[in-house]
Amino acid sequence: MAAKKLLILPGDGIGVEVMAQVRRIIDWLGKRRKIEFDLSEGLIGGASYDVHGTPLSDGTLAEALAADAVLLGAVGGPKWDNLPFQFKPERGLLKIRKEMGLFANLRPATVFDALAEASTLKAEVVSGLDIMILRELTGGLYFGEPRGIETLPDGSRKGVNTLVYTTEEVRRIGRIAFELARKRNKRVCSVDKANVLECTVLWREEMIKLQQEEFQDVELSHMYVDNAAMQLVRNPKQFDVMVTENMFGDILSDCAAMLTGSLGMLPSASLGAPDATGRRRALYEPVHGSAPDIAGKDMANPLATILSFAMCLRYSFDLAEEADMIEAAVKAVLKGGLRTGDIMQVGKAKVSTTVMGEAVVREL
Amino acid sequence: MAAKKLLILPGDGIGVEVMAQVRRIIDWLGKRRKIEFDLSEGLIGGASYDVHGTPLSDGTLAEALAADAVLLGAVGGPKWDNLPFQFKPERGLLKIRKEMGLFANLRPATVFDALAEASTLKAEVVSGLDIMILRELTGGLYFGEPRGIETLPDGSRKGVNTLVYTTEEVRRIGRIAFELARKRNKRVCSVDKANVLECTVLWREEMIKLQQEEFQDVELSHMYVDNAAMQLVRNPKQFDVMVTENMFGDILSDCAAMLTGSLGMLPSASLGAPDATGRRRALYEPVHGSAPDIAGKDMANPLATILSFAMCLRYSFDLAEEADMIEAAVKAVLKGGLRTGDIMQVGKAKVSTTVMGEAVVREL
Ligand SMILES: CC(C)[C@H](C(=O)O)[C@@H](O)C(=O)O
Ligand SMILES: CC(C)[C@H](C(=O)O)[C@@H](O)C(=O)O
Repeated sequence: MAAKKLLILPGDGIGVEVMAQVRRIIDWLGKRRKIEFDLSEGLIGGASYDVHGTPLSDGTLAEALAADAVLLGAVGGPKWDNLPFQFKPERGLLKIRKEMGLFANLRPATVFDALAEASTLKAEVVSGLDIMILRELTGGLYFGEPRGIETLPDGSRKGVNTLVYTTEEVRRIGRIAFELARKRNKRVCSVDKANVLECTVLWREEMIKLQQEEFQDVELSHMYVDNAAMQLVRNPKQFDVMVTENMFGDILSDCAAMLTGSLGMLPSASLGAPDATGRRRALYEPVHGSAPDIAGKDMANPLATILSFAMCLRYSFDLAEEADMIEAAVKAVLKGGLRTGDIMQVGKAKVSTTVMGEAVVREL
Repeated sequence: MAAKKLLILPGDGIGVEVMAQVRRIIDWLGKRRKIEFDLSEGLIGGASYDVHGTPLSDGTLAEALAADAVLLGAVGGPKWDNLPFQFKPERGLLKIRKEMGLFANLRPATVFDALAEASTLKAEVVSGLDIMILRELTGGLYFGEPRGIETLPDGSRKGVNTLVYTTEEVRRIGRIAFELARKRNKRVCSVDKANVLECTVLWREEMIKLQQEEFQDVELSHMYVDNAAMQLVRNPKQFDVMVTENMFGDILSDCAAMLTGSLGMLPSASLGAPDATGRRRALYEPVHGSAPDIAGKDMANPLATILSFAMCLRYSFDLAEEADMIEAAVKAVLKGGLRTGDIMQVGKAKVSTTVMGEAVVREL
């Protein structure tokens, strides 16, 4: 089997610390499971801007395009907040998504039994929650043209962004939604605003066509985005797979993440189209941000990044067994009572980033 | 004082039933407080389509433009779901908002003491909640041009909507936000996606300028929309006034409404610019929809519409005392233990729409 090319981009803030814990797991895989990676590490976000004057250098982008998978920490921080738009850390993230063609963002929202109490929602509403939000990631308002700010003759200004989707863009994300649902509970809820936005009328029509043509074994329903936000709060367990466009997905997936009460636990995967050999470009990252307030203090929760790495093993390297082992180890560590500050509960033991990482490896 | 021209548009589904309860309050105001309205009633939504072939007729629009205030029930239902886009009930609502120039949508999210348990969130997270979401209502994606669906030469299609805001549009909604905050806790949180969308970079910059020029006594903060969705779930009480653009406001205000656990209780007001005499065009409506599943069964909760009428008295007719009385009556009825089905709790008395309406009048 060819070498497994893995590019690690720790990014900014706590990204660096949490990624160090993934390194431990990679070491363990080499020693105990004889699984070797062709590893490299690069800069992205503010860290890249500081060295290269751009949040994503051509060199790093080339490495990402050549890798079998990319593992990312987080980007951003107050240090770079006042940079011009095109130099902001976020531009690096958006550029790597776009250039790698990562149109499918998988955002599972799951509640770990040990942490059901951490949610601001009543335990019975969220316990056992296991839904998958699938967000389109390279289209819509984020990338549509025309865009920009124009100064009008009278000195006032006008800001424009464009929401645009094509048949093909909707079909390819729809296909991923239906395929995911087939491995789960066979229900897809497509979220749009088809009562107002023509762009999402197209979205809905294409979803319906696709389901009828290729996925009649999967149930398809539709929901307006405002109602979806309400239903997530009212009864999140009603969903199986929710699929939606980029901007709606940004909002709803973060809302769903917060329902779990433990943002520091949630992984994500972003996948591209398969190439001739069936290989998909892929990037894995925790849902949480760079948390500049606790960066460098060995306080961050490394579990979301560790679980993102487990997703990476599962989806990019076909190592389901090892992914299962890591996920089980994380659950065992939680059950054993260890907690980082963000998920701390009365009666549990508060530990550092490093101790949490070590505990997962020990459990393995 | 000139006659108070009030146009009532019950609309579809439960809109008709809940509006009938407002009529009782109007009668009471006439008999007991000597307050008379120049009342008329019209059709909107599916009800209008059935009679006039359009969800908003020119005649009704003209009446709305001539009225001091419009009170609306709700629009929509399965009967009209498959109509072409331009005939859908929602188009009537969007058209009346646009033609009346109702750019400011006030959506209070408040938790009534008697109902704190109804929320899916833990009582300590939501009890006493009292935030105001201010949604821009006549701009952004909802109305931006170009828009539509285009068929490409290869037979595939492309759907487009445009997010656009001008300096003036941002400033006029910003002004309302700061003015509202002045009467509350003097804090405005402006929600945007300025790390991705240039249109909302303009939004943020204009908010900052406006605050510095005219509202230095009010605190202004900024939040990205994805984070705002999370923060509403994590700790909604951190907000005072939240102001945001149309599409974000649609999503966030519904999310906030659901946090309260009692959608059937929430009123809203939509205001236009003041004319030469200082009068603002205004439309008041409950946040809930037309609930076709329970329509015609005398089961709907009339309180959101009654509270919308109270807002109408307060904002359009300067009848703060009567508005206070109605709000107090609603609270008293809840405290007395009456509940419609949507807010039913163990140990309380389940009553019909009619009985609930009568109880409020009796309390008055
Ligand atoms: C940082 C930002 C550009 C990004 C996005 O909006 O996509 C983030 O919120 C996310 O969800 O990954
Ligand atoms: C019915 C629909 C067009 C409307 C909107 O999106 O504005 C509704 O959701 C609302 O919030 O009043």
